[in-house]
Amino acid sequence: MTLKLGVIGTGAIGQEHIRRCSKVLQGATVVAVSDINLEGAKAALTRLGLQAEVYANGHDVVNSPDVDAVLVTSWDPTHEEFTLAAIAAGKSVFCEKPLAMTAEGCRRIVDAEMKFGKRLVQVGFMRPYDVGYRALKKVITDGEIGEPLMLHCAHRNPAVPESYTTDMAITSTLIHELDVLRWLTNDDYKTVQVVFPRVTSKTHARLKDPQIVLFETQKGIRIDVEIFVNCAYGYDIQCEVVGEEGIAKLPEPSAVQMRKSAQLSTSILTDWKDRFIDAYDVELQAFINDVSNGSLTGPSAWDGYAASVAADACLKAQNSGAIEPVELPPRPAFYDKA
Amino acid sequence: MTLKLGVIGTGAIGQEHIRRCSKVLQGATVVAVSDINLEGAKAALTRLGLQAEVYANGHDVVNSPDVDAVLVTSWDPTHEEFTLAAIAAGKSVFCEKPLAMTAEGCRRIVDAEMKFGKRLVQVGFMRPYDVGYRALKKVITDGEIGEPLMLHCAHRNPAVPESYTTDMAITSTLIHELDVLRWLTNDDYKTVQVVFPRVTSKTHARLKDPQIVLFETQKGIRIDVEIFVNCAYGYDIQCEVVGEEGIAKLPEPSAVQMRKSAQLSTSILTDWKDRFIDAYDVELQAFINDVSNGSLTGPSAWDGYAASVAADACLKAQNSGAIEPVELPPRPAFYDKA
Amino acid sequence: MTLKLGVIGTGAIGQEHIRRCSKVLQGATVVAVSDINLEGAKAALTRLGLQAEVYANGHDVVNSPDVDAVLVTSWDPTHEEFTLAAIAAGKSVFCEKPLAMTAEGCRRIVDAEMKFGKRLVQVGFMRPYDVGYRALKKVITDGEIGEPLMLHCAHRNPAVPESYTTDMAITSTLIHELDVLRWLTNDDYKTVQVVFPRVTSKTHARLKDPQIVLFETQKGIRIDVEIFVNCAYGYDIQCEVVGEEGIAKLPEPSAVQMRKSAQLSTSILTDWKDRFIDAYDVELQAFINDVSNGSLTGPSAWDGYAASVAADACLKAQNSGAIEPVELPPRPAFYDKA
Amino acid sequence: MTLKLGVIGTGAIGQEHIRRCSKVLQGATVVAVSDINLEGAKAALTRLGLQAEVYANGHDVVNSPDVDAVLVTSWDPTHEEFTLAAIAAGKSVFCEKPLAMTAEGCRRIVDAEMKFGKRLVQVGFMRPYDVGYRALKKVITDGEIGEPLMLHCAHRNPAVPESYTTDMAITSTLIHELDVLRWLTNDDYKTVQVVFPRVTSKTHARLKDPQIVLFETQKGIRIDVEIFVNCAYGYDIQCEVVGEEGIAKLPEPSAVQMRKSAQLSTSILTDWKDRFIDAYDVELQAFINDVSNGSLTGPSAWDGYAASVAADACLKAQNSGAIEPVELPPRPAFYDKA
Repeated sequence: MTLKLGVIGTGAIGQEHIRRCSKVLQGATVVAVSDINLEGAKAALTRLGLQAEVYANGHDVVNSPDVDAVLVTSWDPTHEEFTLAAIAAGKSVFCEKPLAMTAEGCRRIVDAEMKFGKRLVQVGFMRPYDVGYRALKKVITDGEIGEPLMLHCAHRNPAVPESYTTDMAITSTLIHELDVLRWLTNDDYKTVQVVFPRVTSKTHARLKDPQIVLFETQKGIRIDVEIFVNCAYGYDIQCEVVGEEGIAKLPEPSAVQMRKSAQLSTSILTDWKDRFIDAYDVELQAFINDVSNGSLTGPSAWDGYAASVAADACLKAQNSGAIEPVELPPRPAFYDKA
Repeated sequence: MTLKLGVIGTGAIGQEHIRRCSKVLQGATVVAVSDINLEGAKAALTRLGLQAEVYANGHDVVNSPDVDAVLVTSWDPTHEEFTLAAIAAGKSVFCEKPLAMTAEGCRRIVDAEMKFGKRLVQVGFMRPYDVGYRALKKVITDGEIGEPLMLHCAHRNPAVPESYTTDMAITSTLIHELDVLRWLTNDDYKTVQVVFPRVTSKTHARLKDPQIVLFETQKGIRIDVEIFVNCAYGYDIQCEVVGEEGIAKLPEPSAVQMRKSAQLSTSILTDWKDRFIDAYDVELQAFINDVSNGSLTGPSAWDGYAASVAADACLKAQNSGAIEPVELPPRPAFYDKA
Repeated sequence: MTLKLGVIGTGAIGQEHIRRCSKVLQGATVVAVSDINLEGAKAALTRLGLQAEVYANGHDVVNSPDVDAVLVTSWDPTHEEFTLAAIAAGKSVFCEKPLAMTAEGCRRIVDAEMKFGKRLVQVGFMRPYDVGYRALKKVITDGEIGEPLMLHCAHRNPAVPESYTTDMAITSTLIHELDVLRWLTNDDYKTVQVVFPRVTSKTHARLKDPQIVLFETQKGIRIDVEIFVNCAYGYDIQCEVVGEEGIAKLPEPSAVQMRKSAQLSTSILTDWKDRFIDAYDVELQAFINDVSNGSLTGPSAWDGYAASVAADACLKAQNSGAIEPVELPPRPAFYDKA
Repeated sequence: MTLKLGVIGTGAIGQEHIRRCSKVLQGATVVAVSDINLEGAKAALTRLGLQAEVYANGHDVVNSPDVDAVLVTSWDPTHEEFTLAAIAAGKSVFCEKPLAMTAEGCRRIVDAEMKFGKRLVQVGFMRPYDVGYRALKKVITDGEIGEPLMLHCAHRNPAVPESYTTDMAITSTLIHELDVLRWLTNDDYKTVQVVFPRVTSKTHARLKDPQIVLFETQKGIRIDVEIFVNCAYGYDIQCEVVGEEGIAKLPEPSAVQMRKSAQLSTSILTDWKDRFIDAYDVELQAFINDVSNGSLTGPSAWDGYAASVAADACLKAQNSGAIEPVELPPRPAFYDKA
């Protein structure tokens, strides 16, 4: 009845997920872990007060007969390999984003999963599990604003380190919008264009900041996403859906309203981890429940592939300045939702 | 066609009203002024670039054949005398609050006006001319919240000087609520009780601050008004009307919404003069128009009397700690609104 | 390591807690239940897909050697008896409110617990576990608004059935404020007064609705709580704390912001169960964790007693119309928080 | 001392301005009017209770020795002619938008005015006189959000008639943003692109609705303006300025906050006339004062020309789908603000 999990990679996010599955969520236990840093893996378990088999090689986790399902939280370039291994072993696998380093890599996972004949893969996109996005989607699905025509979005970080470069605005930041906006609109991207406003004085030579990404979807919805990762004032995720009958806006995080120092204010978060912390719990509980129930419903390998194809088009648009097509093949019936 | 005004008292508020009537409003001109400080009066006119007759005695203003209507903005203890003089001269008079120093004084004005047989007096209560209060009253009158059952109000100042004492919370501050809440609810006070919370450390020995004043009206509405004149954070007027069907709240002043320094905020005013500045214009324009049209509609001598009677009961309640009656006689038909 | 729970009473709230402890929370399992309706108890377990010992008598649950800790969710008049039995058995007990039917009953539990020598009792007040109230308390504790001077609160329900009478505004509704406001202010009530506004046309003969309850605390804080259980528009809990430096207000529940039909709006809850649903989870998880850690930290038997004493004073004030003392003895050192 | 105005064109807006200058504002009087419908002009004066000379020909108004300054509120295609006539007569002229039917026409006015050697022309762009836009500009000018990098704007109407076509989204609707955003940013447009989202089902064959217009300014600011004239829900003007340090948003119109029918709401305007009604007063009072003071400061002929050049580029971009340059020559020093 309890799902026995193997976790590949015990870095920061790996440890968070181990803690989550062991101490917060129901229906799972972590029975095996691996990390290239074997001692680090052991120390992590000790800190958490947990007992589990510790392997140096992620494939041993995948292949352990004790392991029912796998969490891939290792170094990004190894995601594809371990996810494919889990599929080969016929085990369900939750893979942190990115599913693979390239769209082709994602496609190989899609193909392997389809060949296996059953959904085994969930990608670690947590926003569809955020209570705010879910409420927003419900408003749309309930028809309260009519057909969506435009989305105005923003993804703002207070600051990023020097190592963050222009392309990472797409691959590390926008990647969340690339997934969640498809899910929200039940639509796919047709074209993308990137424009660069005057840069903020707070950025550095290798990062053009802010950027605005403009999409047209297959249904003709126009989406603009402002990415501003040195916005100074806070971590702020905005999403406004303009429909034929009205407009719905992603809820602001709940906060104490203050009257102080001639300001009527609520606080804005500054740390991204606080914004979607609850969504991680819901996401992994859904994975555990869905695996136990025999049918995955979360972000699929196809969704990971679609986000990767869109990201590639965005990167191309960053460089060309032109309107670039997003060339995603039609979704196989295999990935139709019930 | 142009109403010729005489202004008694050229202190701060007097000068403001002279400027307003001369440079902002339509349909009036200031033809005569007086002040016990004759030179000050002349200097004020010069600063404003205006020409008018200057008298040492307010009665000369009242009695000047050039003067159609009178503004009384002199020292508070002289209000009654000049207002009575205007009535005796059959001239319309706008008298700044307080109408008189005692309820009896207000009553003498009421009696004189009724004896004259026509409304001549408007008291300087400006809140009924505030666009926010008017919108709130419209919501009530339109029946959008059903019958009003409770009002929760607050009158907050950032700070007051040492000369401000406990009783002035009633006579200088609450006096505005005493008028506007009668107007808003179309009701009269039946009883009043004053309770004293723990005092703020920002007050001084002769001022208990904050205070809460609790009213029951003739219709049974319960009103609580928090008076907090050293609230530190701003000048803030709150009024929430709880009805059978819903709740309506006085609009916050319009302000730019900011996202900055981890705060989502709008600014709160700090100077009371900014809050009702527009209402003063509307109030005096209404007086000018109403006098020109031959029929006053603003706050009446009766309203001034009613506020004075209520204030007396509040002062008594401050001292007794008991629930005190507000003994206002029935309103004479003379003061029924059309 | 897993806490074995016995649940006395398998009505609505009992079933909810069984589900919660079995399917949502960590670290506990339900091993025994009882109900006067034995078949109902069995059916409830079946519906939840759980296995546990089923007893006709709650004392058998308390005394079962399998049971580590007890949840009392039975008929209100039996709460005291079972809580005392759990103390006698030296077992931790979570008792739904009310702890007992009278203040004297609560006092007997306090005395039994003190005699036993260790805290064993947590009362089912869930608001201190609500994320909004916790954020509000943090603002106060952090000194962001200075010393609290006044609280303006409201507890509004859209409607109540005919069986709800005037006294239940205190015992069923205000009881939550009676606990949470003590916790929020770290203070105790000194006096209470109840005033009755004009009644809403939506109430019935045996219910005066709305009511306003006015407290003075030991520190001199003034608290007003509007109770309006036929407010028509929604389930709405308001709490505003006015301090020396500023004002903090309980967060509104997070909601999608809509622009539609000439309204800029967010929805208000209508079902009380939605408002504190998450707090119930946090509350019981805290109980499970605290029992496992050997030291209870939640609402204590003393808190239950204090709420009961305050409720009695409120009921007296409803009838007398006078300012009534709240005669709570000094808190024994036994109940001091770490 | 009183400015004697002549008004050319007594249609709806002409009558409004006559009423405004005669009955609301200070320092002006309407002494002459003209309209091709002579009887209509006379009837309008009668309705307003005013006396003025009535001419059939606007040039008679311009040339009347009684007239100090001219308001041009006639049929759009005659604006250029009468404005040029006023310049030729050396009289100040307030010309409703559009200043002329083409950019070339506007240029002719600019050239005539420069040749005359003194600013005589104010164009009827009222948004810079709106209290909200002024507050927003102050925040920017005060440096509270650092350098502006992006503007997100929307101009929404509940509905438009069948006669409103795609190009009118630029010439009748966006024209206000074209002016006010230059003023707000103190910048000029460099390029423009128009994208067409999926159309609303509420539009008709000759109107693509909504549209999104994307600007790059000379300083590199990126501006997006959503134009949605069948948005169904209300008349709603949005403007958000994203700067290096924070974000400032145009105030929402002040409104009563309601709790009713499970909604926490404020009302949204539905009639554009209510949104900027006060700004018209401020705008014309400024014209009157500036003419009286001998120095115009409001929207200039150059501003009218700049808006016209930008509108032409927008129309081109609507048709081409490409990024079009906005080819405004450098501003002559003649038009530098003090």
